[in-house]
Amino acid sequence: MIILNTDFGLEGPYIGQVKAVLHRDAPQAFVVDLFSDLPPFEPQLAAYLLASFVSGFPDESVFLCVVDPGVGGERRGAVLRADRRWYVGPDNGLFNVIAQRAAQLQWWDIGWRPQKLSSTFHGRDLFAPVAAMLASGKPVPGNAVDPQSRIERDWPADLYQIVYVDRFGNALTGIRASALQNTARLRAAGQIQGFGYARTFTDVPRGQAFWYENANGLVEIAVNQGRADAVLGLGVGTAVSEA
Amino acid sequence: MIILNTDFGLEGPYIGQVKAVLHRDAPQAFVVDLFSDLPPFEPQLAAYLLASFVSGFPDESVFLCVVDPGVGGERRGAVLRADRRWYVGPDNGLFNVIAQRAAQLQWWDIGWRPQKLSSTFHGRDLFAPVAAMLASGKPVPGNAVDPQSRIERDWPADLYQIVYVDRFGNALTGIRASALQNTARLRAAGQIQGFGYARTFTDVPRGQAFWYENANGLVEIAVNQGRADAVLGLGVGTAVSEA
Amino acid sequence: MIILNTDFGLEGPYIGQVKAVLHRDAPQAFVVDLFSDLPPFEPQLAAYLLASFVSGFPDESVFLCVVDPGVGGERRGAVLRADRRWYVGPDNGLFNVIAQRAAQLQWWDIGWRPQKLSSTFHGRDLFAPVAAMLASGKPVPGNAVDPQSRIERDWPADLYQIVYVDRFGNALTGIRASALQNTARLRAAGQIQGFGYARTFTDVPRGQAFWYENANGLVEIAVNQGRADAVLGLGVGTAVSEA
Repeated sequence: MIILNTDFGLEGPYIGQVKAVLHRDAPQAFVVDLFSDLPPFEPQLAAYLLASFVSGFPDESVFLCVVDPGVGGERRGAVLRADRRWYVGPDNGLFNVIAQRAAQLQWWDIGWRPQKLSSTFHGRDLFAPVAAMLASGKPVPGNAVDPQSRIERDWPADLYQIVYVDRFGNALTGIRASALQNTARLRAAGQIQGFGYARTFTDVPRGQAFWYENANGLVEIAVNQGRADAVLGLGVGTAVSEA
Repeated sequence: MIILNTDFGLEGPYIGQVKAVLHRDAPQAFVVDLFSDLPPFEPQLAAYLLASFVSGFPDESVFLCVVDPGVGGERRGAVLRADRRWYVGPDNGLFNVIAQRAAQLQWWDIGWRPQKLSSTFHGRDLFAPVAAMLASGKPVPGNAVDPQSRIERDWPADLYQIVYVDRFGNALTGIRASALQNTARLRAAGQIQGFGYARTFTDVPRGQAFWYENANGLVEIAVNQGRADAVLGLGVGTAVSEA
Repeated sequence: MIILNTDFGLEGPYIGQVKAVLHRDAPQAFVVDLFSDLPPFEPQLAAYLLASFVSGFPDESVFLCVVDPGVGGERRGAVLRADRRWYVGPDNGLFNVIAQRAAQLQWWDIGWRPQKLSSTFHGRDLFAPVAAMLASGKPVPGNAVDPQSRIERDWPADLYQIVYVDRFGNALTGIRASALQNTARLRAAGQIQGFGYARTFTDVPRGQAFWYENANGLVEIAVNQGRADAVLGLGVGTAVSEA
């Protein structure tokens, strides 16, 4: 299985072009879009988001992940094997949280280059073919390096920011729910009073803000049958703190 | 075939997570997205919309349908078999129009529970595995009940409201075209004069509003090469009446 | 392989309905979405855009292309075979650039009609079944005509307009990069000074506008880590000129 995680947007041709390459190089692989709308230009926010979405996927899954403001510049390409899953994409922090949390970790700098490499679409030209190689059981086309030389160690264990806002206006944070007590109150965007925990939407009155452990273990801020982003003034990057 | 109908949004990870579960549990099934942007929190509007979109699909198709503001609360989960097609989702009115119109109807309360059930994502954890069971020919994991005990009988045969606005600004109503004469004029959103029927876009001048029988048999309000939602002030939920 | 290029929108049921038909009629075919958000009602803009996105696809690929403001009216349906790839859709200019640039070209007027043809959704009812026939190796269901009788000859070689704006606010033009020198400066939307060429984003300061050859050979206007559409006031249809 190849799982796509990009900031390319659902709109436009980019995801389709990547899928055509994957079909050409790994026609047997099941390909699924997870995120097509990761926060653009923000590998750190995406890193905390992605790290909470990998656990449901089987061993040997290949995560093709691209948030790549430095495309065409000097940044390296990376292949990771973390807890029996594969990750392919730019080496710009995008995999830092997955690496920090991994019990087993290997890291390769991608050495392979395609015959034709555009300056602006390495997702299609470089990372997709590498993902297809891994999904096909081929050797990693790169040089093994010490993962410790690649990890940025000063990143916090959890990120107290909004990392994603979904269609309903629910705001996902970079905080694992396991880091908070259910008695914790949270504040964001200049609120004084803050809001408390609830198990699910129907446990609070319509229109009330609350936080809950979402279905991937992250702290998520919501309003029952309303939009938390609009009601509370939240957006990607907004800081969150305990009240 | 499994057909996805949800209000999850195309954006974000939710559809991808559901597809990963379907692939795990029913790898042979063809999965297609029909609606990913049903009106959020509005099972009744979605019910009239969905009922007009099922007729093109083959016998034994499985419709996985989730508009679920009560997720995690007391509402039941339902499996229906209506006119040789399957339906899986929350029992909150979402299947009421399909049930009302069915010539053959069976209904089950879902009894099965997964090992791990989140409080907020039954689409992934509960309904997707059940849909995969049905698509794999397994027995219904629930208790047969009398459909008449589940149907809400006071819903109108057709819903005189806008139930969906598409990319072009065309506004789909919950009215079957067979309920209207072609001489009917319609009004919505405080218009006085109303607008009449045309067969297709090119039969009216550019910029003119009209209603037509759309490709699924519903009354749809449009403006030739314009946006009916903007021109006429229509949105999901807007009331429509005969002029 | 069948490649979908439409203005139907990702949202809504239309792409799903087309895919259900393709699955029914050509279950073995790999289907990929390239564009679901071509400029609505603008076959000419779409024509220049599409012509630059076909080269990466293998021989015998079938492009199902629908931008069809005249649906239900008098316009013909077309099948083209251009440089060993197939194209199916309305005969309204959408294939004019592909045809103009083709070294080998055949053209058919579609003669086949389905048993049930809606007035407004020929993408599902007419063009999708024809695309499935071609993908299945069946004969073209139409009458061969002289391509020269179908091509509009007065279209320019390149279109100096914005033909698409992507998720990042990057603005694709209808100009092939091979038509410009790297010393060219471009202007759009009333700017006086214009902006020059760069190879990729990281070659200019953050916030600076530039043009580059995109990964499909088109001139694309961008701002490093910013939105060119907002910064420069660009939208679909905006004229572009050399400064």
